[in-house]
Parts: sequence; C-alpha cells; structure tokens
Amino acid sequence: MPTKRTLNKPRAVVLLSGGLDSATALYVAKAEGYRLYALSFDYGQKHKRELEAACATARAAEVEVHHIIQMDLSLWGGSSLTDKEQNIEDGDLSRRVIPFTYVPARNMVFLSVAASFAEAVGAYAIFIGVSEMDYSGYVDCRQEFLTAMEEAINKGTVCAVEAGHKIKLYAPFIQMTKWEEIRLGLKLGVDYGKTWSCYRGGEKPCGTCDSCLLRAEAFRKAGVPDPLTIG
Amino acid sequence: MPTKRTLNKPRAVVLLSGGLDSATALYVAKAEGYRLYALSFDYGQKHKRELEAACATARAAEVEVHHIIQMDLSLWGGSSLTDKEQNIEDGDLSRRVIPFTYVPARNMVFLSVAASFAEAVGAYAIFIGVSEMDYSGYVDCRQEFLTAMEEAINKGTVCAVEAGHKIKLYAPFIQMTKWEEIRLGLKLGVDYGKTWSCYRGGEKPCGTCDSCLLRAEAFRKAGVPDPLTIG
Repeated sequence: MPTKRTLNKPRAVVLLSGGLDSATALYVAKAEGYRLYALSFDYGQKHKRELEAACATARAAEVEVHHIIQMDLSLWGGSSLTDKEQNIEDGDLSRRVIPFTYVPARNMVFLSVAASFAEAVGAYAIFIGVSEMDYSGYVDCRQEFLTAMEEAINKGTVCAVEAGHKIKLYAPFIQMTKWEEIRLGLKLGVDYGKTWSCYRGGEKPCGTCDSCLLRAEAFRKAGVPDPLTIG
Repeated sequence: MPTKRTLNKPRAVVLLSGGLDSATALYVAKAEGYRLYALSFDYGQKHKRELEAACATARAAEVEVHHIIQMDLSLWGGSSLTDKEQNIEDGDLSRRVIPFTYVPARNMVFLSVAASFAEAVGAYAIFIGVSEMDYSGYVDCRQEFLTAMEEAINKGTVCAVEAGHKIKLYAPFIQMTKWEEIRLGLKLGVDYGKTWSCYRGGEKPCGTCDSCLLRAEAFRKAGVPDPLTIG
C-alpha cells in the first residue's frame, strides 16, 4: 500500500512472468525508487506454475498492485508452449533456429496491455526483463523491436500525444547475460527460489527444456547454486 | 469453410467489433478476395451487445474463423466504457476533447493480438476500420499510430524478421468520412441492421451517446435510413 514516503514516487508497470528475468527486472525498478505495478498473463501457457511464482515474487517485492490478465493465446496454437497437440521439446542451446516454444507476438501483446495499464494508472515507465544476449531466437526480445514498440506506444496513447507524458520502455538486461543478471539480482535481494522457469510446469523443473538449460547454465556461470533445484 | 476456389487466396485478419466501421472493413477485405479471419474482444465493455452483432456480421460475410478474445481491460478502469463507477455521458459532437469513453491503448492491444493471430495462421494483412476524419479524439485511430504499430509488428514477429513475410495494416477508411464509408459498405453488401454502435448497449440504441450521434449523422449525410433505428 502507498505510504506517505512513497506517494510522490513515480510509478512503473513491470511485466512479471514469474521467471528469473522478470523477477530481477522488478527488483531493479524497486531499487530505482518506483512504485510497483506488476502485470502477469494467464495466456494458456502449460507452465501456469509460473503464475504462482509471479504472485510470490510480487508479494516479496511489496508491489502495490498485481494484476493477472486472462487472455487465451492458445486459441490459435502456433507454439508448443500453448498448443496441447504439441509436446515441449528438449532444449538444445547450440541450435540457432526459432524454437517451437515461440508464441507469436507475445511480447507485443504483453507490452500493449502494459501500456494500457500504465496510461490508466499514470505510470510512465514499463519494465521488461528481456535480453538480446541469450534470447533463444525470440525476435521480440531485441532492442530493435522495443524501440519500435516504444514509438507505437507514444503515438497511440493520449498521455503521450496530448499531455506530453511519454511512456518509456526499460529493458535493463538487454545487453546483459543471464548470469550477470543473476549476480545483480542477488545484490538487489531477489529470492530466486520463488521464481519458476521450466516450460513443462511439473512438480519440479524438468532440467531438459530450453528454459531449464538456460537457467542452469546461467547459475553455473554466475558461480552460485540455484535455490530452486537444491531446495 | 475453405473451398477449392478459396484455398489459394491470401488470408486477412479483420478486427471486428460489431460496429459499422469494422463490418464495412470486413466486406472490403472480402471484396479484395481475402480469406477472412475475424477477431473480436470481450474486454469488459458495457455494450457487450456489439459482440452479438460481430457474430451476426461474421456469419453473413462467411468468415472462415471468428475468435472472441476474453480480456478484461476494465480491471484498471480509466474509461466510462468499462468502468462500472462511471456513467457513459451523452455525446456532444462539437466538443473537441478526449471523451471519457477512451479506453487506454485499446487499438494497440487489439492490433497486437491480431498480429499474434495473423502470424499463427499465416495472414499477412490486418484490417482495422478506423478513420482519422471523425475519430472522436481517440489518438489510436490516426495513421501516425498505425504506421508506428506496423513497424513494431514487423520488428517483433518471426514471419517478418526471419521469413520476410511482412504484415501490412490496412485502414481503408483512414481518410474517409463515416457517411462515405456507409455508401461504400452498402455497395459491398453490408447489412447495417446487423451492426451495433450504441455504447450503452441497451435493448435499443439510446440515440444520445457519442457513438449513436456519430452514426445518426453519418446515415443522414449518406442519405439513407439506418436499418437499426427504423426496424
């Protein structure tokens, strides 16, 4: 809840999937003094478990508002993350093709809804935890896309066009590797035991999907244990 | 359903609210020979009646697929169209301020979801029935916004970035008044008796909200009766 101490602070909307990138982005926004408005999506992903992780992380970071938007992107399939007919394949980090887990235009949808939320609550900052460094072939994790999206947001919202309140997109890790991000997050107080990355969304992380492989590699390179797998 | 005759035709996603603009856009896409993929949104609008109109229009135009996406943009209010605490005010066409019915970033959200749908089904055209001529102060109905959004879509989808299949946004009425649009629609076979414009969404159009006033003015200028109000 806002207190006297926080009322004058600017607000930020943070896209919070429940994974380690978005959790770290939330703590970066917190460290920069923003009042936190978190946004998660129940879009038909098989790993709905990440939403519990998003709630736990939001509580730990003391966000003011956390909305979970229901929106079924599995209606048209196109991704093994949402399509019940497709299995989630094992990951292969040496492969440089678009993985089957790509959900068409997902970050664009998320950022658009974030822009709507931001305009409604008077937040002129949106945080997203994407990185170009290990982006798994997802084209909507690139700076080039974010720049175009920021432009669209500022042409399509009244706050920007009529009142001069431009909305800025912050992707603090865009040029950072995941292991550097984890080191930063640990300094900022992120509890990675509360995050969830596995695409398969079982009882425990599967250890073999793309997302588990990237996470394991990142913790190894950061030189710290993953609290989720040692727990 | 696709037939032999249609299978080689390109696909288009059409944003179909159920109002007269989107119905006309659907028939323009049909006349241009596209296979039709319609997309409507149940976003917490008070005039859910427009969704019945969208279904009736989709059936009449023989679309191949029609999805209605549930996504609650009323969570953060900000608009009298979705906020239960705010009444929908009477319209005043001489007023040049942003009306309370403005829903933050609505067309951006709709176009993003349309881009996801388009990429999933291999449609490289998206139709939206907005106009700059009588746009009621909605900044997301301007060509400037659409140009920026098209750029974002083509930076954020694999089909465009990796396969060179750019997605094009078509706003056939962007420089057309609503009455010219109605004349065009009648030639193309639109049944405006199946559309719905009233923001209040009662049994009959209220006749006094912004949307009813714009519609009445347009039919008067087109010199034809509105089948919805004479019926």
